[in-house]
Amino acid sequence: MSNLSLKFRIPENWVWEQLDSKNATGILITHLPHIRWACGFTGSNGFLIIRGDGVHLFTDRRYETQAELEVCGVEIHIGKHDLIDYAKQTGIVDSSDRLIIQPEYITISELNHWKATVSGISQLSIENLLNKLIALKSGEEIAGMRKVQTVSDIVFKEILQYIQEGIRENELAAMIDYRHRMHGASGMAFDTIVAFGSNSALPHARPTDRKLCLGDSILLDFGCMVNGFSSDMTRTLCYGAPDAEFFDAYSSVQEAQENAFSITCAEVRASDVDYAARASLAEKGYGDFFSHSTGHGIGLEVHEWPRISENSDAVLLRGYTITIEPGIYLPGKFGIRIEDTVLIESHKCERLSSIDQDLILIGS
Amino acid sequence: MSNLSLKFRIPENWVWEQLDSKNATGILITHLPHIRWACGFTGSNGFLIIRGDGVHLFTDRRYETQAELEVCGVEIHIGKHDLIDYAKQTGIVDSSDRLIIQPEYITISELNHWKATVSGISQLSIENLLNKLIALKSGEEIAGMRKVQTVSDIVFKEILQYIQEGIRENELAAMIDYRHRMHGASGMAFDTIVAFGSNSALPHARPTDRKLCLGDSILLDFGCMVNGFSSDMTRTLCYGAPDAEFFDAYSSVQEAQENAFSITCAEVRASDVDYAARASLAEKGYGDFFSHSTGHGIGLEVHEWPRISENSDAVLLRGYTITIEPGIYLPGKFGIRIEDTVLIESHKCERLSSIDQDLILIGS
Repeated sequence: MSNLSLKFRIPENWVWEQLDSKNATGILITHLPHIRWACGFTGSNGFLIIRGDGVHLFTDRRYETQAELEVCGVEIHIGKHDLIDYAKQTGIVDSSDRLIIQPEYITISELNHWKATVSGISQLSIENLLNKLIALKSGEEIAGMRKVQTVSDIVFKEILQYIQEGIRENELAAMIDYRHRMHGASGMAFDTIVAFGSNSALPHARPTDRKLCLGDSILLDFGCMVNGFSSDMTRTLCYGAPDAEFFDAYSSVQEAQENAFSITCAEVRASDVDYAARASLAEKGYGDFFSHSTGHGIGLEVHEWPRISENSDAVLLRGYTITIEPGIYLPGKFGIRIEDTVLIESHKCERLSSIDQDLILIGS
Repeated sequence: MSNLSLKFRIPENWVWEQLDSKNATGILITHLPHIRWACGFTGSNGFLIIRGDGVHLFTDRRYETQAELEVCGVEIHIGKHDLIDYAKQTGIVDSSDRLIIQPEYITISELNHWKATVSGISQLSIENLLNKLIALKSGEEIAGMRKVQTVSDIVFKEILQYIQEGIRENELAAMIDYRHRMHGASGMAFDTIVAFGSNSALPHARPTDRKLCLGDSILLDFGCMVNGFSSDMTRTLCYGAPDAEFFDAYSSVQEAQENAFSITCAEVRASDVDYAARASLAEKGYGDFFSHSTGHGIGLEVHEWPRISENSDAVLLRGYTITIEPGIYLPGKFGIRIEDTVLIESHKCERLSSIDQDLILIGS
């Protein structure tokens, strides 16, 4: 991402629309993944001031060289101490400003600090300000999403050999993370889930010391970061032959995932994708055992807008990337989830992973 | 930590003092590490309402069983959907409430959601509300800090064998993380830094594809999480024999760290610890090349109050755990940092790591 595009991603007419809608003088972006998305800057400190006639990045001396390499079409301001105070000193913001802010990403303390430093400044909240712009992936971003998923696919195939009787959940999780890093991931996108047997009945299980036994199911949910993009996938396997109840549940999840996948394309509502998965599981009698939403947007952050849930009002567009991840969780027995990251196309969607969804039986 | 103490950590008289100081009816704690510290709850969603006559934890159904196991002396409320709305429904909060909040941990959106759900409620900000209570580690917490550092010490010794010509920074970082997990860490406390030669001149370098060459310095800065506690240590090594400039800088950093360490004890000001390190480096002519503060508090979070910096007004007390980590960064050449987590005692402090500070030369 750092050398991707090298241009500012927010269209000028969109900026004017927002400013007009609130009678504002500028937009303040403080959420780092959004700053990265907008201008390519990957530093850990800074903010953007966007105006109709120009964009200003404020950051500190640690990122002076990096900012010049990463961003283009944005004026860079390097502050020594307090960046808000520095923004005032430069005259880029002043007491007459009415700045649009992202209220879900700014704390009360930060807002108070702005008010105390630039007396008279006004802040105007707009929630979900950049969501729709960020959801719509460019060709370069889609290539980035394909690449990061490729790394997770390679690791998935590699780690099958480590799934042997007696391996602990946290050992396998450590190996999954390690193999991702060895294949170029800068880190994991979230805490890897490895859950055996009844442990997998918790949708967000944390790896424990539990050792793998013959007959255990194995739920693996992981994703990594490559060039700023996130992967996310889940597969449920078995060590040894499972019983009939597991087979039935597995085929129900697989069918639910396929049903949700098959109706997903541009102009479909996120809530309809959720309904397709939910209805499919309900029809098989598992309606009460699917306790989370069907998926989420994914890109520079592993959880982005839109949520793929019953009460979402989002409409999917070509170029969105989302996850589809129905599951069944039977307390005390097992959990099954199958998750793919998919790219929305005009008439269908495409799974970015090459790992298929059929049940993998290991050691039997 | 989960089964540690099993009692509420905030003294009742402290609660009354806060309530009186603001004429408040309760305290709202939303920052998860603080909730964990206060009552032992390790879930990823919830908040605490603290009153003079009782404490209430609100969380969701995923954490029903877990909350009962983890907390004691706290009333648990399991909400199905919106927890704020549920808190209103239970009558635990109502429109006459004046709640103290931690403004650095609550977003504008969260505050607006409280106001919209419980109309008439007032919020009263107190920054740094729990800092001094959290900084003061109990005997059990100190044992936890010792244990987590032991894991990092073991890994430090183990990974020396992997430091060979041609290994990449990100390969070595991946191995450091992997070995921590294999020794029981639930994860890393922050992104591991491995930087060779000139790359280490950036205090917060990220591991790259750079391969280790004879004569390179090696900066390793890492820490992990065990039972919720964080470790943090930095050592700078050399692969092959360094030049005289490196030796001189190394001994200056080592002396600065020792000087800061030797004056650190209870009742000493954090700013004096910073000054001891800074003055020592300035005396050797490196004053301009130490570009960050000398350390930070550490515990359930890797960065806690107090900062060990020039402008800190904190006074260290027996039972605080902080880092002492002076460094020298010569652009284009190398960076050197030596960091230990130390426990403040009455008349001295104690390094929690058993790895000494002398320069380690590898492969020569």
